[in-house]
Amino acid sequence: MYYLGIDLGGTNIAVGIVNEKYEIITKGSVPTLANRDGKLIIKDMAELCKKLVANAGLTLDDIAYAGIATPGTADSDTGVVVYANNLPFENFPIADLLKEYLGIKTVYIENDANAAAKAEAIAGAARGAKYSVMITLGTGLGGGIVLDGKVYSGFNHAGAELGHIVIHKDGKQCTCGRKGCWETYSSATGLVNMTKEHLIKARENGVKSLIEDMINGDLNNVNARVAFAAMKQGDKVGAEIVDEYIDYLASGVTTIINIFQPDVFSIGGGVCNEKDYLLKPLCEKVAKETYGNGGGPRTEIKIAELGNDAGILGAAVLGL
Amino acid sequence: MYYLGIDLGGTNIAVGIVNEKYEIITKGSVPTLANRDGKLIIKDMAELCKKLVANAGLTLDDIAYAGIATPGTADSDTGVVVYANNLPFENFPIADLLKEYLGIKTVYIENDANAAAKAEAIAGAARGAKYSVMITLGTGLGGGIVLDGKVYSGFNHAGAELGHIVIHKDGKQCTCGRKGCWETYSSATGLVNMTKEHLIKARENGVKSLIEDMINGDLNNVNARVAFAAMKQGDKVGAEIVDEYIDYLASGVTTIINIFQPDVFSIGGGVCNEKDYLLKPLCEKVAKETYGNGGGPRTEIKIAELGNDAGILGAAVLGL
Repeated sequence: MYYLGIDLGGTNIAVGIVNEKYEIITKGSVPTLANRDGKLIIKDMAELCKKLVANAGLTLDDIAYAGIATPGTADSDTGVVVYANNLPFENFPIADLLKEYLGIKTVYIENDANAAAKAEAIAGAARGAKYSVMITLGTGLGGGIVLDGKVYSGFNHAGAELGHIVIHKDGKQCTCGRKGCWETYSSATGLVNMTKEHLIKARENGVKSLIEDMINGDLNNVNARVAFAAMKQGDKVGAEIVDEYIDYLASGVTTIINIFQPDVFSIGGGVCNEKDYLLKPLCEKVAKETYGNGGGPRTEIKIAELGNDAGILGAAVLGL
Repeated sequence: MYYLGIDLGGTNIAVGIVNEKYEIITKGSVPTLANRDGKLIIKDMAELCKKLVANAGLTLDDIAYAGIATPGTADSDTGVVVYANNLPFENFPIADLLKEYLGIKTVYIENDANAAAKAEAIAGAARGAKYSVMITLGTGLGGGIVLDGKVYSGFNHAGAELGHIVIHKDGKQCTCGRKGCWETYSSATGLVNMTKEHLIKARENGVKSLIEDMINGDLNNVNARVAFAAMKQGDKVGAEIVDEYIDYLASGVTTIINIFQPDVFSIGGGVCNEKDYLLKPLCEKVAKETYGNGGGPRTEIKIAELGNDAGILGAAVLGL
C-alpha cells in the first residue's frame, strides 16, 4: 500500500506518495493562494493528489489513506482545522472536504510541527524512541511531542506550543502576545535579530566583524547563517553571537528535558545545517544544566533527519 | 479491599489505610530518621503498616497492595529509588524490601509529587480529566503530570520537574544549579524571599508596610502568609508583593498550559490556603497570556482538593 502525504503551507501545497518503507516515490506542489475560499484550496489539493497517483501508475485503490499536515490547531479526532493564522480556515472540515473531492475514505489531519515530530519518531532521528520531542528552528519555533507512538497535543489539540514557553520573563516581545518566548530567541528569526543587535553594538564600540563584509554593511542582508559563517573563520563577534544563541537554545532544551525526559530530543529547521557547530556546544550546555537524576541515563539530543520532507512524511505516517 | 498509602518524607513516614471510596480510615506516622541505614527505615515503615492494619481490625489479606510516595527519582517499573536528595537511597529497592518486611506481594512506588498529581486526578480537583497537571507550592515547587490515567515521568522516571523550568534566564540562583528556575520565584520559599526583598526596598524608600508589625520588624520572621495578610488589610507593599508573586506564577502556569493544554491544572501546597486571593488574579493573568486557539475551550485552573493527605492518597492509588 501507499500513503498520500500532504504538507499544506501558507505558500505551497506539497504532496508526496509514500511507500511502506517511508520513501517518497513521487512528489509535486501547487501554490496555496491562501487568500481565497478554503474549499478551492482543498479542491486544488485533491487535483494534485489525483495527478500524482496517476503519474505513479497507481489508482486510488492503492492508497491506504491521505494525511494532511496543516499549520494551526488541527483537531485530529474530527478532521477539522480549528484555527490557522495564515490560512482562511476557522472550524473548517478539511478532512471531510478532501474525502469528497478526492474520493477516498480515510483522511487524517494533524498540526504540521506535530506531524514532523511523528515522522522523526517513526522514520527519522527518534526511530525506536518511546518518548520523543522535536523542535523546528525556522521563521518560528515549532514543537511536537510523541508519546508511546502518539502525537500529544492536549485536550483541545492546541498543545505542544514549545515556541511559546517564556524563558526570559518580560523579555523580547513575541507575536503571540507574551514577552520572552523561546521563539523570540531561538528561532532562525531570533538568530537574525540577535545578529543585528550584536553588529549594532560592535559598530558602536568600533569593533570590526567579518559579518560586515558578508552583508555588504547592510543590516537588511543579515540572515541566520552569517554569524556561524563568521565564527568558523575565527570572527570574535560571530563567536559571541553563536554562543549567546546556543545559550538560549540550551536553556529551552533543558527546560523541555526537565519536563519530558524523552529518549530523544531532535532539532530540525534551517539552523540545523550548522550540524556539529550547533549540536556539540548545545549538548555541553544542556548536560551542565539538566536536573540531576543520580547520573542515570540522559536524553539523546540529535539533529532531525528528514529535512524538508518532514512535512510530507509526517502527513503520510499519521495513520500509523 | 483496602490500600496502604505510604507517604515517605525526609522527616516522617506517614501511613494511611484507604478504602475503595478513597477515604483514609486510619493513619499514623513515625520519624524517618533519615541518617541511618535505609533498610531500617523500611523496617520501621513495615512495622507501622502492620500496627495500623491490626488496629483497624484488618489482616494483610484485606490489603490489595501498598503504595509508597517517595522524594527523588523513583523507578515505578522496578520499585527502585534511583536517587533522593534527602534520604539515604541510591538505586535502593524499597518496594522489594517492603514486600519482604511486611509480607505482601504487591508494592508500587512513585515520586511524591507525581503520586499527589495522580491522587488529584482520581479523587480530587482533576477527577474525570483525561489530562491533568498539578504543581505543589511548598519549600520547593513540585510537579506531576497525569496523562490518560497514568503518571508521566519520562524514560528515566526523572521528568515532570516543573519547578526546574527556567522562566527568567540568568535570574535567581536555584538549588538545582540553574538560574531563574520557576521554583525560585513561585515556591513558598520564593514568596518569602520576594517579601523580604520588597520590605528592604520599602525601608530604603521610607515606605511603611503593615508587614513590619506582623514580623516585629525582623526579616527572619517573614513567612509565606504575611504579604497576603497585609494585602487583605489594604497594605500597598503587600499588594505589590502578591501581584509580583502571582505574575511569576502565571508565567509558569501559562508555559505549562501552552505545552500540555491539560483539561485541569491544579495547584496544591500551603500558598493555596489563600484560595480566591490567589486563584482569581492568577486565572486573569493566565487568560491574557495563553496561546490562542481561536477562542476554543480553555484549561480549568483549580486549587487542589486533597491537602495534606495527597501523599497518602497518592500512594494508595498507585495501583489503580
